[in-house]
Amino acid sequence: MTADERNVGFAVETMTNSEGTPASYAALYRHELLDSVLPFWLKYSKDEQHGGYFTCLGRDGKVYDTDKFMWLQGREVWCFSYMYNNVEKNETWLNMALHGARFMEKHGRDAEGNWYFSSTAEGKPLVQPYNIFSDCFAAMAFASLDKATPSDRYKEIAVTTFENIIRRQHNWKGIYNKAYPGTRTLKSFSLPMILCNLSLELEHIIGTERVNELAPIVIREVMDVFYKPEHGLILENVHPDGKFSNSFEGRLINPGHTIEAMWFIMDLGKRMNDQLLIRKACDIMLHTLDYGWDKKYGGILYFMDVLGMPPQQLEWDQKLWWVHAEALVALAKGYALTGDERCWKWFKKVHDYTWAHFRDEQYGEWFGYLNRQGEVLLNQKGGKWKGCFHIPRALYQVWKVLEGVDIGSKK
Amino acid sequence: MTADERNVGFAVETMTNSEGTPASYAALYRHELLDSVLPFWLKYSKDEQHGGYFTCLGRDGKVYDTDKFMWLQGREVWCFSYMYNNVEKNETWLNMALHGARFMEKHGRDAEGNWYFSSTAEGKPLVQPYNIFSDCFAAMAFASLDKATPSDRYKEIAVTTFENIIRRQHNWKGIYNKAYPGTRTLKSFSLPMILCNLSLELEHIIGTERVNELAPIVIREVMDVFYKPEHGLILENVHPDGKFSNSFEGRLINPGHTIEAMWFIMDLGKRMNDQLLIRKACDIMLHTLDYGWDKKYGGILYFMDVLGMPPQQLEWDQKLWWVHAEALVALAKGYALTGDERCWKWFKKVHDYTWAHFRDEQYGEWFGYLNRQGEVLLNQKGGKWKGCFHIPRALYQVWKVLEGVDIGSKK
Repeated sequence: MTADERNVGFAVETMTNSEGTPASYAALYRHELLDSVLPFWLKYSKDEQHGGYFTCLGRDGKVYDTDKFMWLQGREVWCFSYMYNNVEKNETWLNMALHGARFMEKHGRDAEGNWYFSSTAEGKPLVQPYNIFSDCFAAMAFASLDKATPSDRYKEIAVTTFENIIRRQHNWKGIYNKAYPGTRTLKSFSLPMILCNLSLELEHIIGTERVNELAPIVIREVMDVFYKPEHGLILENVHPDGKFSNSFEGRLINPGHTIEAMWFIMDLGKRMNDQLLIRKACDIMLHTLDYGWDKKYGGILYFMDVLGMPPQQLEWDQKLWWVHAEALVALAKGYALTGDERCWKWFKKVHDYTWAHFRDEQYGEWFGYLNRQGEVLLNQKGGKWKGCFHIPRALYQVWKVLEGVDIGSKK
Repeated sequence: MTADERNVGFAVETMTNSEGTPASYAALYRHELLDSVLPFWLKYSKDEQHGGYFTCLGRDGKVYDTDKFMWLQGREVWCFSYMYNNVEKNETWLNMALHGARFMEKHGRDAEGNWYFSSTAEGKPLVQPYNIFSDCFAAMAFASLDKATPSDRYKEIAVTTFENIIRRQHNWKGIYNKAYPGTRTLKSFSLPMILCNLSLELEHIIGTERVNELAPIVIREVMDVFYKPEHGLILENVHPDGKFSNSFEGRLINPGHTIEAMWFIMDLGKRMNDQLLIRKACDIMLHTLDYGWDKKYGGILYFMDVLGMPPQQLEWDQKLWWVHAEALVALAKGYALTGDERCWKWFKKVHDYTWAHFRDEQYGEWFGYLNRQGEVLLNQKGGKWKGCFHIPRALYQVWKVLEGVDIGSKK
């Protein structure tokens, strides 16, 4: 048992309060995952006619639009194969993952192997591969599926997509890049996080050595370059030398994105047995949560400006499902790994807000979009951005972390 | 006096109610334009150091970001030269227009004469010309300035930009177009409206004959192709043959855009002395207003889905300044041109909402963005989308229309 594991054990044992024990939360999240969320997607998202998944599902699961967004296809393949790999060898889940993977293999890529952004239900390409996230989730999908049912073909898709991302990393958008070259070059916080996460997902294919080479670079980039101690916050975009850009992009803070990144970093800290790194990631996460928490209505704001200027995003004050799901994971991990009671207090606070506002007791699954006041803004269960991903991943993570199981190394 | 003018006269004379006469509204709008809105931009938006205008102005007029968005540069040049041409020969206004035009001439275009989307304060290009609206407002700006102070150079800029727009019209986005060719070709409602409006603005340069050729084509396109009698609404995007596309883009309704277009059409109807066209445009406008009016909180919703599905735009329920400004113009014109009492009732209702919620009594000018409940969502006076354009244009139009002056032919 490592120091970290003892820390987890200690934390779990000493948690008692009237609102529920970690074990009771674990049971609750497990139940929500297995009895509400996964069944919802199994029941409603499968396109039996053309293959792949519908993700534009109404509150009751009814399909309201048939377009297929490739990154959401990849995320759902990833999700069902991940659950097969990590929860139980449920053939229904594996078949669901295979169902999406067949559609992706057949219709997902252009001649250069780039993944389209979207297609029609039949698989005819609609929107070009202007966005590297489609590739990212395709690589994750086939790597995860390859763990469930090893196949040279899946490995090959995962690894060629990964190499393509590495090749495109400094100009993701390629010909679709609208920035005039040289005037204001900024680098984005998304990139190191994507590469790190991807390499971990592909570790069984690309090898531990490559992951171990990449991890310290990513950690330095995130914790020393994008993180700004003077604000205690992570910026979304900085100059190539790490300097602050006083522009809309440069001032942008996305609290949910930071909080999500901090649990990735905590996982890396655990992997590297680096308690100081875990502590730092946990502190940044707590500070960002405090900063992003809406003091008036509760919930975590979507976008902010580090200088308090008006952000360009009109949806800045909305409360989004993924932000809250990621916060629950980060807080559970923060607590398990550090025993910091602030994490547990915050966990219960975010849990209460999230379950009261996002969860749909009537039809299952969770709403995606609330207004600032916490009312449902759009009641669909999926669309162009929300699919079968953040909620089930978070439910699984919180369940396993609060059960006290060591899952960091399984990622 | 034409039949239309008599109609205006009749309408104005018979309006009496406790909430104010058309003449009193006219005085109010005139005052707001001349004593609050134009002075605000004159005082705060001029960049004395680098030329051009700042448009990212805080509630109190303070510059919070120095980027320059070319379409907003064009709109402000247009606005001050338009006021000089139509209100009074105020040299301060002309100088303000010339100030922006010099910056645009010097820094606005790439080697092919396409207008950049944005630049730094100094004029270094930031975002490429991916958007035809920059060109549209540049052409309008130089055509309007040419009326104020005739110049072969201004004419040449206006006309070459116009021809460039005509050339690019079927593929505005050019290399930045992310749609996969052939799968789902849609045409946008914006295009005919832009071409019509532009040709009217350039009439003194390109000639009345060209405008008269274009007008019936545009009217047919808007009123017979994009307008769908089965819904009583105008769709933002349709198939090339005019058929409905059951997709996010195809289902999209933008009430403010329709309402704005309907006052353009009413102006065209007046120009062509076509009372039936005016009547139809007025009816569509009233129906759209009724459809888009938020029955719960008041104000006009930003985006809707014609089949009642969830729109993709997260900001769908927000109340925007330009939507309400355009509605005031459309209602004033509808009333003046048809005498329909519904227009006058609606005018007062939209006036009350707009002045109560958007107008900033403390610092002058108007807020741009309210949440659904009508509270200020972002308190800046300008940014990437809001500049010196919709509010002053609407104030001028309502003032002049309600004064009973024939301004349709002056456009």
